[in-house]
Amino acid sequence: MYNKEFEKCWLDYQKIDAKRHIDDKFISIYSDNAFRDEKITDNAVFELQTAWKSFFGKELCLATDKPEKKYIYLKIFSADDSDYEASYDPGDEGYIIYFEPETEILVISAKTPSGILYGTFDLIRNIIMGTDLSDMKICSKPEMNIRMIDHWDNMKGDIERGYSGDSFFYEDNKIIFDDRTRMYARMMASIGINAITINNVNVHYEETFLITDKHLPIMKKYSDLFNSYGIKLYLSINFASPVTLGVTEDCDPLNSDVIAWWKKTSKHIYEVIPNFGGFLVKADSEGRPGPHTYGRTQADGANMLARTIKDYGGIVVWRCFVYNCRQDWRDRKTDRARAAYDNFADLDGAFDDNVILQIKNGPVDFQVREPVSPLFGAMKKTNLMLEAQIAQEYTGQQIDICYLVPMWKEILDFNTYAVDGDGKVKDIISGKTYGNSCCGMAGVTNTGCDANWTGHDFAAANLFGYGMLCWDTSLSAEHIAKMWIRCTFGFNEKINDVIWNIIKDSWHTYEKYTSPLGIGWLLEPLTHYGPNVNGFEYSVWGTYHRADCKGMGVERNVESGTGFAGQYNKPLCDMYEHIETTPTELLLFFHRLEYDHILPDGRTLIQYIYDTHFEGVIEVEEMIEQFRQLKGVLDDKRYDRITERLNRQYKNAIEWRDLVNTFFYRMSGINDEKGRTIY
Amino acid sequence: MYNKEFEKCWLDYQKIDAKRHIDDKFISIYSDNAFRDEKITDNAVFELQTAWKSFFGKELCLATDKPEKKYIYLKIFSADDSDYEASYDPGDEGYIIYFEPETEILVISAKTPSGILYGTFDLIRNIIMGTDLSDMKICSKPEMNIRMIDHWDNMKGDIERGYSGDSFFYEDNKIIFDDRTRMYARMMASIGINAITINNVNVHYEETFLITDKHLPIMKKYSDLFNSYGIKLYLSINFASPVTLGVTEDCDPLNSDVIAWWKKTSKHIYEVIPNFGGFLVKADSEGRPGPHTYGRTQADGANMLARTIKDYGGIVVWRCFVYNCRQDWRDRKTDRARAAYDNFADLDGAFDDNVILQIKNGPVDFQVREPVSPLFGAMKKTNLMLEAQIAQEYTGQQIDICYLVPMWKEILDFNTYAVDGDGKVKDIISGKTYGNSCCGMAGVTNTGCDANWTGHDFAAANLFGYGMLCWDTSLSAEHIAKMWIRCTFGFNEKINDVIWNIIKDSWHTYEKYTSPLGIGWLLEPLTHYGPNVNGFEYSVWGTYHRADCKGMGVERNVESGTGFAGQYNKPLCDMYEHIETTPTELLLFFHRLEYDHILPDGRTLIQYIYDTHFEGVIEVEEMIEQFRQLKGVLDDKRYDRITERLNRQYKNAIEWRDLVNTFFYRMSGINDEKGRTIY
Repeated sequence: MYNKEFEKCWLDYQKIDAKRHIDDKFISIYSDNAFRDEKITDNAVFELQTAWKSFFGKELCLATDKPEKKYIYLKIFSADDSDYEASYDPGDEGYIIYFEPETEILVISAKTPSGILYGTFDLIRNIIMGTDLSDMKICSKPEMNIRMIDHWDNMKGDIERGYSGDSFFYEDNKIIFDDRTRMYARMMASIGINAITINNVNVHYEETFLITDKHLPIMKKYSDLFNSYGIKLYLSINFASPVTLGVTEDCDPLNSDVIAWWKKTSKHIYEVIPNFGGFLVKADSEGRPGPHTYGRTQADGANMLARTIKDYGGIVVWRCFVYNCRQDWRDRKTDRARAAYDNFADLDGAFDDNVILQIKNGPVDFQVREPVSPLFGAMKKTNLMLEAQIAQEYTGQQIDICYLVPMWKEILDFNTYAVDGDGKVKDIISGKTYGNSCCGMAGVTNTGCDANWTGHDFAAANLFGYGMLCWDTSLSAEHIAKMWIRCTFGFNEKINDVIWNIIKDSWHTYEKYTSPLGIGWLLEPLTHYGPNVNGFEYSVWGTYHRADCKGMGVERNVESGTGFAGQYNKPLCDMYEHIETTPTELLLFFHRLEYDHILPDGRTLIQYIYDTHFEGVIEVEEMIEQFRQLKGVLDDKRYDRITERLNRQYKNAIEWRDLVNTFFYRMSGINDEKGRTIY
Repeated sequence: MYNKEFEKCWLDYQKIDAKRHIDDKFISIYSDNAFRDEKITDNAVFELQTAWKSFFGKELCLATDKPEKKYIYLKIFSADDSDYEASYDPGDEGYIIYFEPETEILVISAKTPSGILYGTFDLIRNIIMGTDLSDMKICSKPEMNIRMIDHWDNMKGDIERGYSGDSFFYEDNKIIFDDRTRMYARMMASIGINAITINNVNVHYEETFLITDKHLPIMKKYSDLFNSYGIKLYLSINFASPVTLGVTEDCDPLNSDVIAWWKKTSKHIYEVIPNFGGFLVKADSEGRPGPHTYGRTQADGANMLARTIKDYGGIVVWRCFVYNCRQDWRDRKTDRARAAYDNFADLDGAFDDNVILQIKNGPVDFQVREPVSPLFGAMKKTNLMLEAQIAQEYTGQQIDICYLVPMWKEILDFNTYAVDGDGKVKDIISGKTYGNSCCGMAGVTNTGCDANWTGHDFAAANLFGYGMLCWDTSLSAEHIAKMWIRCTFGFNEKINDVIWNIIKDSWHTYEKYTSPLGIGWLLEPLTHYGPNVNGFEYSVWGTYHRADCKGMGVERNVESGTGFAGQYNKPLCDMYEHIETTPTELLLFFHRLEYDHILPDGRTLIQYIYDTHFEGVIEVEEMIEQFRQLKGVLDDKRYDRITERLNRQYKNAIEWRDLVNTFFYRMSGINDEKGRTIY
């Protein structure tokens, strides 16, 4: 059920103690002419006016003539105009903010209205954070060209792997467009998002019509709204669209009828929506149709589509999540971890330059701990995007707290050794390593129509943090969190400290009470929430721990395993090849270990499992203890809402602890050294 | 989706080789006056006419005046009329059949039209079986007074645990009444059924209205049809009906408003349907409302209802399936097997005489192997019914073949030692042991709207066999099967032999490749089909194997276990108390055993598991091999239909074999002595 009520998350501008700021000195906003008729500029002005009203109770008028002083100046960048501008090129989306003390003018300088809008949001955040504007000098531009949000919303109104209510785009195959839609665009622009795909990668029947006249007119409305916030609209498409729509017999990408249909369709899309972003495609994956059906390569499929939209500036984002999801559990040769590399690495260089491959961060599927996908280090002549999951499908489903920014930072900082011993993921996807410009990051969002957008109030930190990282990977997890806390919950130090303390290690806490050392998949097969150690063990999904009375894990080295470790560049492949050199936290991803195997810290594997599971629950208890301090400090509504989730997390953590410990105790027969209760 | 097409199962009368019979000598049917205007008699006449037409191509007319010879005589029983009648009292439902050679009159003698109808169907079966009528002398009456079929059909049209299509009673909350309904009544009468409950024991919203004027008129049509076949209509009721219908605040059975509502409602039901059978009630079970909610006993609940229908001859059938279905898997004290006894045994004598307790055959829930419920031997002053499941919920779901008659016969022959060392289940439920008359057997049916009624053609053997056993528990599984085969597939010896060979040990085959030694519940929690050894292990359903690296099973003796064994009368409780005296096939139901425990046949437990699972698959292969002999012998339609099921059974058996063997191999670390493939 669609819910019209919504809150404002980190855009809930609140009154500011004026003594701390000079910002309430400003009387007006003035925009250079070239920006003036742009809707993006209007939105920037609206944001400044709204913020100033809330912060200082002050109406900032939009001056038609340039005032003499005390105004906010939305300025067209010119390197000649100031030292600041002379020293920094903001590019198409960046900005420079500086204060001229004599005239008391606050300048936001940019080459485009988008730059002005991003600068505006940054300025507002800085005010909330208490930055002294009197000596403000900010130069900023995004690291990644494409900063995308992917929605797994279905037109029926449900969201695949959604944990915060139903879709706010669709209900009963109708498309919604209301105040919430605009609020959403504001939120996305405020964190720097410039690309949004508003339907699920699993494209069902009705969604196939999104690229037809049945739905294009309202898509145009979406595109216009998004454009006014610097965002391009993308759609997930059904690779078999012409078959589903009854036009062609097959969807072979080399079939001239198929090509002709896509050309015609794409042309029409761009006639209706000239600024359309492009297509997101899940092909040959989990039952979706794709080029493999016709003996064609993934490149054949992607390029066919890409050529139909290239002239209009369109992009095809092609997912690499291709694997055998009908594996026989008896088959020990097939290793799902190998699949993306095996399916794509040989095609490096074969993709057109308006195709981007979207690679999930790990080789399997958004587990709480995975190594970084080896594909990032293997495709040097191909546009690549990192796909992260903001939705906590496998990390607590927005019931349990799991602040993901620290995980994403590890992934972004991971060195693939792709080029001359260098090639961090963040440099690959921002174009530095391989020198491409069509690249970036995509995040599967965690939003829904819950009033607070993300189910758990704290889950919004992940959405906010995702956007921040896409813009600037150097931001620390702490800095991002503290911006989000302050923007969301206001200026209270207690709130600030408590929430940061709760979320900062929440990823590791979640990891502790769930899956040890990268083993993954010990969870309920259908819901992906709660423990079920054998849930996937005899299934078709290719995800096995092979636990027996002696040990557990799948050997993935080259010498005696599936060879997955060999997909990495040197020296990584050598590092992962051997137990001794594999990072502890990934030991069970790469190797089969016996329960009495001694880990680097001197503990046995089984004792490590017991210890971490007990610790995880204690850490949740500590979270709850911490949070109780906010009773009466935080408003009751949010306090109660968060408390309810914390209680559910606690219950979940206990179930995980007891079930995992019991499972491996029964399996191994080895007692806990500390004699704690195992059932 | 409702399917109007239906076949005739064992009522598919076919041409008979006349040389083998004298039966085609008859020219007419004559009925005594007292029977003549009865609809049941009409239906008997119709059956005889239809059969004679099919068997011999002959029209039997219904004579208005008594002919001199060569007729079938539907006769009012009188002990004075013949030696046969003088020597046997057929009771209300029995009959005597004999042939008078001089006049060539075939007599069916009975006290009631029902007796005539049952005699008619028996006569027809005898003709099909080739019995020589020239010296026929049959005296027969049912062992059990109530021979009930329970439907778990919902008014939406689905069937809970139905495996042969949707309901033929309901579709989209509408009630169906058509040719299929009459065919169904014929089928049920032909196997002696005299009570049918046509809605699920889980009574949902719409079904609550079945006892109101919204649906009573069509229920009256059902009742009339059923009555014309000697069958009474029963309905499952919602214990909270007056709450659901908005009349009372609660459904406390001692609340005078509640009592008044039921009195009024029951009175009205019997005004509309004077011959209504009564209510079937699932209370305080798996989320259903019941008297426990109000601190009342099961007797309080059952008696309250029973008193509202006693004056009309109505009966309340009250299920004993009451247990804690929210058990914590960590809790080792609660034992679901104890639940029925713990909830009911102390209430012996507290139930009114028109209440019957319906007890599932085993203490848990229709597993492929369970001990007989100890409750049968504990309630000596209470009317009891045995509840069996004809639907193969846990025994292959009418995909896999599992001929259940041998299992039911073991249960019926089980001695509870309730009275003076005697008290077989069959004697308890036929009233001999405790001297009651209100008792019998209920079977959860396996029918649906598939053309062949039961999904797998062979599953009809269970439905047929169930009815046969209710009538006469002394019939052998082989005799029942051979009647069913001949009535269903005709007179071919090859068909007869092959099908009997396939089904005769199919229960043991199914047991072999699924759950060893009474352990049960190694299956998929949602579907109850296919293996999932840990599927229920950490669940709320109270069904655990507690397998660890040393052994498996729950100790249920008195000395060191849950005490379940103590619920049986001596000497059974002593027998089940000790591993040494517990029947092998139930060892893991009663005891926890280590994998290297030596079974009576000298094998270890783990080797027994491996062996039986390999054997089970081989036996399915042999079934398939056998069945291939019927290619071209059996009609293609049925041959293909059965072949398709056999192939699915084979796949299922392999999955069970490999998964169970692998699970316990990984758990125990013990190799198969014969070195067969375990994964």
